[in-house]
Amino acid sequence: MSDILHRVGVIAPLTDVHTALTTIDGLAGWWTEDTKGDPDEVIEFRFASAGGDGFDMKVLENSPELVRWEVVGGPDEWIGTHVSFRLSQVDDYTIVLFKHEGWREPVNFMYHCSTKWATYLMSLKQYVETGAGAPSPNDILVSNWH
Amino acid sequence: MSDILHRVGVIAPLTDVHTALTTIDGLAGWWTEDTKGDPDEVIEFRFASAGGDGFDMKVLENSPELVRWEVVGGPDEWIGTHVSFRLSQVDDYTIVLFKHEGWREPVNFMYHCSTKWATYLMSLKQYVETGAGAPSPNDILVSNWH
Repeated sequence: MSDILHRVGVIAPLTDVHTALTTIDGLAGWWTEDTKGDPDEVIEFRFASAGGDGFDMKVLENSPELVRWEVVGGPDEWIGTHVSFRLSQVDDYTIVLFKHEGWREPVNFMYHCSTKWATYLMSLKQYVETGAGAPSPNDILVSNWH
Repeated sequence: MSDILHRVGVIAPLTDVHTALTTIDGLAGWWTEDTKGDPDEVIEFRFASAGGDGFDMKVLENSPELVRWEVVGGPDEWIGTHVSFRLSQVDDYTIVLFKHEGWREPVNFMYHCSTKWATYLMSLKQYVETGAGAPSPNDILVSNWH
């Protein structure tokens, strides 16, 4: 089993970051504009660059310090993996410890997703700090895989 | 043991990316301006934001398809780990499969380094594609840990 790990610090109150991770409008502000569903049950993320494909996330935990999802729809490599955001306040920063865990094999797609997650987490930081992130379809391109 | 994985695609010939990974001028163009040493033996990378601390990399492999270093100087968590860049050409892209392997524990510093590596690899991409990267001390800040 392999994990993708990231850490970003958002210069904003913890509640602002939490809102960006747990509401449809918030998630649409930094990950993908095409975000739908029930933020207490299953959230549906779709990506124009993937021809409208995407991910369905079942919300397992939603507390001020931890947001945790299970991937219940999406590419085979993602199904059954878990995505979590652990939040803490340090001085002026809300620290986000991100983990996408449970990859069965470190396939090339995992390398790609690790880099994309980094750019999306930087989009989260910019969105909360400035009001303007870079969600899909205006996300930062990292390679021929978008 | 845990690994940091990334994948970026640089719109440039493979030899251009290889040069950026194996020459002092190339490395100074995207990772840190304070790069010194012998690119066939040990390369010394220093970072102003770390008070002049940094990393010493022993070059283990340098072929067109693979550049691989051992960390022989730097923070405890890095000593003995390996950093590699595997290159291949796909259409107009040079694909870089990056791995920083051998972390003993997934400490918070590893989360941080994963995100920083992503931003530096995007700097590599921009440097090779446009001539202007974002090396230290003008690197992209991701948190209170810089």
